Amino acid sequence: MTADRLRQLRREIDTIDRELIGLLNQRARVVREVGKEKKAAGTAYTDSLREKEILNRIAVENRGPFPTASLQKLFGEIFEISKHLEKKSDSD
Amino acid sequence: MTADRLRQLRREIDTIDRELIGLLNQRARVVREVGKEKKAAGTAYTDSLREKEILNRIAVENRGPFPTASLQKLFGEIFEISKHLEKKSDSD
Repeated sequence: MTADRLRQLRREIDTIDRELIGLLNQRARVVREVGKEKKAAGTAYTDSLREKEILNRIAVENRGPFPTASLQKLFGEIFEISKHLEKKSDSD
Repeated sequence: MTADRLRQLRREIDTIDRELIGLLNQRARVVREVGKEKKAAGTAYTDSLREKEILNRIAVENRGPFPTASLQKLFGEIFEISKHLEKKSDSD
């Protein structure tokens, strides 16, 4: 019974993971668009104010159980990857 | 015009981020359930084979533009946080 339940929970995690990956790719596509717009406007790429805004919002809105500090750390890494994706939009 | 477009793209990113945070919290809740089931079954907490399976699936299924190696790194961190959440399920 417990083994069945474990399999079921893992299938739920697999579904969530697919959605997470889909969203991260969707985010990456929008970030590349942002890169193109910024280039067209002659704006600098990095926007640390915008990043702080997102991190603050996480602190305000997160209800858990995923810890807020861990979410902020993950998003810090997503920002790093996004910077590369924005810059790569040049060569598209 | 470009400033408007930039604002619009950022709103899209904000929406995606909220969905990401919602999914990560949903995943955390399922992970705590997994912790309880494993405890009931007397199974060890860590399951490195299961983690490898998820990382392999990412490599097979990811179509980008979010880089596969970066996705795998993010999921490595999600696994670490999940281990803490599984163990914390003891005290619930």
